[in-house]
Amino acid sequence: MMNTYRRIVLAQRPKGEIASECFRLETLPVPELVPGQILVKNHYLSLDPYMRGRMSGRKSYANPQPLNETMIGGTVGEVIASENPQWKIGDRVAGMFGWSELGISDGQGLRRISADIPASAYLGILGMPGMTAWYGINQILKPVAGKTVVISSASGAVGGTAGQLAKRLGCRVVGIAGGPEKCAYVQQALGFDACIDYKQADWKNAFASATPDGIDAVFENVGGEIFDASLARMNPFGRIALCGMISGYNGEDIPILNSRALLTMRLMVQGFIVTEHPECWPQGLSELEVLVRDQQLQFRESVSQGLESAPEALIGLLKGRNFGKQLVRF
Amino acid sequence: MMNTYRRIVLAQRPKGEIASECFRLETLPVPELVPGQILVKNHYLSLDPYMRGRMSGRKSYANPQPLNETMIGGTVGEVIASENPQWKIGDRVAGMFGWSELGISDGQGLRRISADIPASAYLGILGMPGMTAWYGINQILKPVAGKTVVISSASGAVGGTAGQLAKRLGCRVVGIAGGPEKCAYVQQALGFDACIDYKQADWKNAFASATPDGIDAVFENVGGEIFDASLARMNPFGRIALCGMISGYNGEDIPILNSRALLTMRLMVQGFIVTEHPECWPQGLSELEVLVRDQQLQFRESVSQGLESAPEALIGLLKGRNFGKQLVRF
Repeated sequence: MMNTYRRIVLAQRPKGEIASECFRLETLPVPELVPGQILVKNHYLSLDPYMRGRMSGRKSYANPQPLNETMIGGTVGEVIASENPQWKIGDRVAGMFGWSELGISDGQGLRRISADIPASAYLGILGMPGMTAWYGINQILKPVAGKTVVISSASGAVGGTAGQLAKRLGCRVVGIAGGPEKCAYVQQALGFDACIDYKQADWKNAFASATPDGIDAVFENVGGEIFDASLARMNPFGRIALCGMISGYNGEDIPILNSRALLTMRLMVQGFIVTEHPECWPQGLSELEVLVRDQQLQFRESVSQGLESAPEALIGLLKGRNFGKQLVRF
Repeated sequence: MMNTYRRIVLAQRPKGEIASECFRLETLPVPELVPGQILVKNHYLSLDPYMRGRMSGRKSYANPQPLNETMIGGTVGEVIASENPQWKIGDRVAGMFGWSELGISDGQGLRRISADIPASAYLGILGMPGMTAWYGINQILKPVAGKTVVISSASGAVGGTAGQLAKRLGCRVVGIAGGPEKCAYVQQALGFDACIDYKQADWKNAFASATPDGIDAVFENVGGEIFDASLARMNPFGRIALCGMISGYNGEDIPILNSRALLTMRLMVQGFIVTEHPECWPQGLSELEVLVRDQQLQFRESVSQGLESAPEALIGLLKGRNFGKQLVRF
């Protein structure tokens, strides 16, 4: 049993883009457990765009990340010590232990995870990203067979899952992603009908060609110019699940230019945060778990090694450098 | 019985703001009725912002107004000749006969109106504007007692009715209108809790003071900067009924700057056109008719005299010069 563990705290709030000075690696003594507590060794940390928002002091849907505290984040690991009769050493567990090699908990808010599925899946397709996709598709967009669904950030953990779920419903699914490698993956591995590379100069023409009947539903993970391009092609009564605005996480306003379409096409837009809908998680996760076990859903991970690699990996994620669900392996 | 009647047709599509050259007054012979038809003498024509959109060739929720055809518009009048056994001379009728002193119909799409309510009310609070207000409040916003509802263009036919309906539900209702006279009317005659004059330099501070607990629901009739001001003050899970974007009817894009709030506050936006929801009209109109008979709803009309005054009256309406429901009396 080790005597110390490492964690990363928020050292200062970013001004514009985040940089390594925002973070500080600390080594702390492993605390003693008191009755009722368990000690968890984390194997994987999830990195997600929402972290950028929490690092600002800005008003958002959640409280800011406190300075000098462990950076927030979802983790999976195993119990290595227990003073709680409900948990035993070796139990596999998903939690929100943050950017830390160890976690201490009384068991509240922890989720037991299956041993027959790779643990890291519970941070992606069977975690918040997968549930975000499931909720947006099934609770907001509710697309029916034959309709055209557009998914931005299509190679990411949320977008990739959302598109596959829409394909299973019989929709025409068009992804938007950055670069030919990601687009090839979205079409070939994930089975989207088309994927448009927004880094190409003429991408809006390609996008129009890929959506010849207009767009009925949008799973929007990006915002800004990409969202505007979808707005301009919406069909009447289209629906938009607004899940992310990654291009605005540095705090700048992102005007929507085609707001007129909201009225002229009688669109419905719903912003959402899946953690606010816990009542949907049991159904969503059990549906997703069945599909993952049956290998009916594909997913991809981008893994960086060691807690110390987390800041650079998050910076890369925010610049779209990852390819699939971004994880850190301890 | 007269032998001729007058109408106004769209002579050319506007470039930017509309002007009198867009219209042409014509005198036509009164046609002979064939069996099944009725002839209606129109007493009032309704002028509405949607007409500006139809005058453009631009893609919108409805087909453009054809050139050289009678300008579209809602009317009320009475039957003056009938070859249809279901209608007799003197029957009062609401229809869409357009900018025309006479209308011919086989009865399809006409609505009989009560004789104990002034006919003009059926173009306002008991017509499309009233139903727009009823639908937006009851089918989209569904505000509950104690919540803060903001209504833009609050002195208009739609906004004024929407705010009174929200007051009846027990909400705190804050209007936005142009000028002290309109704001006084909105507060004193319509009973809103507050009304902010957007023509005042410091109106956003006044708006913040009038919405100390944030905003839970917005009935948006204007768009642009006024919509943005509401977006910036929305509470989590706020709802927005998007009914009009009057500042964009000249065709220019209106960026929404605070689009971030759609995500961070998990807002729902629904654009709508009440004529697409005919299933709601019987319930809505009967509820509104009861309230109008009982004088539980206030409304105000701005009446211009004679068909020939319609173009100037529409231009004035689009510049916000009207005060209450804009009508033309023939």
